[in-house]
Amino acid sequence: MQTTQTTTDTTSPDSAAYAPTDRTVPTRAKERASYDKETVFQILDESYVCHLGFVRDGAPVVLPTLYGRVGDHLYVHGSTGSRPLRMAGAGQEEQADPGLQVCLTVTHVDGLVLARSAFHHSMNYRSVVVHGTARQVTDPEEKRTALDALVDHIVPGRAADSRPANAKELAATAVLRLDLDEVSAKARTGGPNDDPEDMDLPYWSGVVPLRKGYDALIPSTDLAPGIEVPDYLIEL
Amino acid sequence: MQTTQTTTDTTSPDSAAYAPTDRTVPTRAKERASYDKETVFQILDESYVCHLGFVRDGAPVVLPTLYGRVGDHLYVHGSTGSRPLRMAGAGQEEQADPGLQVCLTVTHVDGLVLARSAFHHSMNYRSVVVHGTARQVTDPEEKRTALDALVDHIVPGRAADSRPANAKELAATAVLRLDLDEVSAKARTGGPNDDPEDMDLPYWSGVVPLRKGYDALIPSTDLAPGIEVPDYLIEL
Repeated sequence: MQTTQTTTDTTSPDSAAYAPTDRTVPTRAKERASYDKETVFQILDESYVCHLGFVRDGAPVVLPTLYGRVGDHLYVHGSTGSRPLRMAGAGQEEQADPGLQVCLTVTHVDGLVLARSAFHHSMNYRSVVVHGTARQVTDPEEKRTALDALVDHIVPGRAADSRPANAKELAATAVLRLDLDEVSAKARTGGPNDDPEDMDLPYWSGVVPLRKGYDALIPSTDLAPGIEVPDYLIEL
Repeated sequence: MQTTQTTTDTTSPDSAAYAPTDRTVPTRAKERASYDKETVFQILDESYVCHLGFVRDGAPVVLPTLYGRVGDHLYVHGSTGSRPLRMAGAGQEEQADPGLQVCLTVTHVDGLVLARSAFHHSMNYRSVVVHGTARQVTDPEEKRTALDALVDHIVPGRAADSRPANAKELAATAVLRLDLDEVSAKARTGGPNDDPEDMDLPYWSGVVPLRKGYDALIPSTDLAPGIEVPDYLIEL
């Protein structure tokens, strides 16, 4: 769903979709790309880790990390001593913060696509790629909101059912914000796209769906007496 | 398992572990890092997509992509028209190929770690980060081997049970090789690391393991008559 400059809709195109840019229009398989915000939010909210890319000494670095979303903002966190946080200016005065150019990518692998031809083997997946500048969060209120979002991203409802960070923990934690602005989603669904002349070849073809969900909870062995499994875990 | 220069073992240290470098020694949680080759191979072989990072116009780009492994070489592929492949010099003469600096990262999320304190919430994960220069594969034999590895990475045994790429498909496909040389693995396992003073707080704590495996196969609707599910899928 691309926005256009000629829309006569009275609602802002920004309310429903991101504007495509040179970086977010793929060179290949353009039909798999989407700029629809709801699609982007669903993919982001369903994943547990993102892959955060940044440039260090001219070379790319890609690290897996937790994240949280609050509306059109993504938050990642880390020790104030970690490399990307230091590079983003954690601990510096806000006005001196140059930010850190990042690319934040989230991917779900949904199924293995087995075609008759080796060439058409593929994956069913959903991904979101976000380009932008991550900046440290210095406002204490926003920092608390971001940390709650990070915990609630692991399990919705969990932030309210755990001990909030104390002053020492807050001081040791740096939070970066990345605004959702230059964003695209991409997805592949369905069966293999075999060539017509391959249809009668003697190879099984189809999709192997990857299993999703959770296995049985493993409670800590030292749980205080009388603590029951909370509803938000039963409902997972 | 770090190698040392003072080992008296008669086997080469390179045979069992990668030598740590400035880029592969983490600034935080060093005890979670490993340079053991078998550990690295297991993590790489069990995942389906990697996140490939590179630098374009000075900014980081992180894209999910399939990969395959042959010994100490990783292979990624793509259309000769795709950005990272073009940037790596696909289509150029080999002697002019400058390669593409990349960071290739693979991550498994194994469980959600719910601590009594928000601060100690975490994930159980296993990841591998590879730094290096990806170069296009021009040798036809190596290219075929790489493409077989890419298909066999999806499902072991599948390359031999599908139609091999023909000349036109081979010409349309670029393959990049990344040598496993500057590599580290990182993992977190086990329960939450709550602080001693938090042990009696009235919050459930423990681990929510993520389910792994496969759901029921979805055969193509137009399978030729008499095609049965192959053993390598039954054994998945």
